[in-house]
Amino acid sequence: MYDFVIIGGGPAGITAGIYAARQKLNTLLITKDFGGQINWKAVNIENYPGFEEISGMDLTKKFENHLKKHNVEIQKEEVRKIEKKENYFLIQTKNGNIFNSKAVLVASGAEHCSLGVSGEKEFLGKGVSYCTVCDAPMFANKNVAVVGGGNAGFEAAITLTKWTKKVYILEKTDQIKADIENQKKAEKTGRVEIITDSQVEEIKGENFVNSLDYFKKNTGEKINLPVEGVFVAIGTRPAIDFVKGLVDLNEKNEIKIDFSNCQSSCPGLFAAGDASSVACKQIIVAAGEGAKAALSAYYYLQK
Amino acid sequence: MYDFVIIGGGPAGITAGIYAARQKLNTLLITKDFGGQINWKAVNIENYPGFEEISGMDLTKKFENHLKKHNVEIQKEEVRKIEKKENYFLIQTKNGNIFNSKAVLVASGAEHCSLGVSGEKEFLGKGVSYCTVCDAPMFANKNVAVVGGGNAGFEAAITLTKWTKKVYILEKTDQIKADIENQKKAEKTGRVEIITDSQVEEIKGENFVNSLDYFKKNTGEKINLPVEGVFVAIGTRPAIDFVKGLVDLNEKNEIKIDFSNCQSSCPGLFAAGDASSVACKQIIVAAGEGAKAALSAYYYLQK
Repeated sequence: MYDFVIIGGGPAGITAGIYAARQKLNTLLITKDFGGQINWKAVNIENYPGFEEISGMDLTKKFENHLKKHNVEIQKEEVRKIEKKENYFLIQTKNGNIFNSKAVLVASGAEHCSLGVSGEKEFLGKGVSYCTVCDAPMFANKNVAVVGGGNAGFEAAITLTKWTKKVYILEKTDQIKADIENQKKAEKTGRVEIITDSQVEEIKGENFVNSLDYFKKNTGEKINLPVEGVFVAIGTRPAIDFVKGLVDLNEKNEIKIDFSNCQSSCPGLFAAGDASSVACKQIIVAAGEGAKAALSAYYYLQK
Repeated sequence: MYDFVIIGGGPAGITAGIYAARQKLNTLLITKDFGGQINWKAVNIENYPGFEEISGMDLTKKFENHLKKHNVEIQKEEVRKIEKKENYFLIQTKNGNIFNSKAVLVASGAEHCSLGVSGEKEFLGKGVSYCTVCDAPMFANKNVAVVGGGNAGFEAAITLTKWTKKVYILEKTDQIKADIENQKKAEKTGRVEIITDSQVEEIKGENFVNSLDYFKKNTGEKINLPVEGVFVAIGTRPAIDFVKGLVDLNEKNEIKIDFSNCQSSCPGLFAAGDASSVACKQIIVAAGEGAKAALSAYYYLQK
């Protein structure tokens, strides 16, 4: 029986691990990898205070090393289901392991949304990608499209311009949602073209992507855009399937928390970071929420 | 007229500055110094994720440099009063300067509480101290007392043992409130003695402190403890005098905030960190709250 099981190895989970260990809680952290979404960051991180500019991979390594200095057991796998028993939680993993804990933190973050259009699955790894950091160099001197006009899309586009000839950003609505900072950076490259009101309908190719079809919502036109790469950056959804039915979720499928202490609707189950209903999905906010959640769990266990 | 004035240069204020600048808000940060309470930390910081162990001074320097990479004006002084005008705030400083802003963040942190006993003011700098980092080396091979059995008191005591012969921790209640981690560390030094139920009544000396009197609450005894130093670590109070009457405060004199977005009871005035009612007074939490507040101010200004 653990005091505290943390699910997730991103900034929220890692910070919670550090805090829980320092409070001498008997703690297990279950995660399939460290860093979570930090690993997908297409550009260097410049807004985690203390590091003026750092790559996602380097920040992840620093977080992981910091955690490992503390007495936290680590289990590298995915959780399948959590059940609440009378006064503890039973956590089943996808590998069939079972762990018991008096308190639980869900800090499992978010996973990519997919477009759900024809060609997307077929050409995955053959022109379709969800990870700029991983795949950008494959597209040297090619034209590519980024689907999504939020920060993730703009950051993907900015990074891609280092390799590609031209990057089209396709945004479904008539408005760009990316930070002004990112918009300016994209403009400065001189190689990013923004197409609003554009709904992607199909990704086409033979062995490899060679174009996509989009529907121009304001004019009604259907347009074929010749590109050899399609980067999908249309957002994320909370990775919380394993607690469905156990806790209240909001309209975005995030675990509803009491913002003062990260407590969910299920006593003893806390949530932090992008899996939770916290308003700002930022690394520094997730880390702060992880500390809050671990201290809240500590007070809960004292009672 | 600024978009955003941030009051305070600790982790909350600095993070807010970085975030506000990245959203291209015309931002002024007013503070008497950088780092706030981080500067008083008696021991190295081991719970700010990314830095396994770092001195308060080094972390402050990293924060300050990070902020200064961004386009934020900095005014080094203290605020005297904030008034709300029809649709802006008027900020007066102690030097008589006046600044106007559309939104304000109070991230002014907290200041030391004093004991309020005879001898405390008289012997300040002559044996009485509020800052272990600053003054510990003056007490080589001496016996000293730390007043306060919370984390600050224990951290002061642990640091002091590197120089002093013996450290007494005097705690007013019958319970130690410091983290278990700190309690173990203090015990391991073999040179810390904890005296609970002890109410300090007077600090005595001639040119320099030579003892203190305390009242043993459980037995009724009055005891004279020969010590040559008294470190006061009985907590802090929010440094928010300049907004009294303008915003709602809680019973601890902290600015009451909506925990989801750091908004105070006065629209356009936000609070973060130790000046606010956030539950956990931790560096990483203050930084996260600073980011939240700056983004909330940005959304407020968009409207």
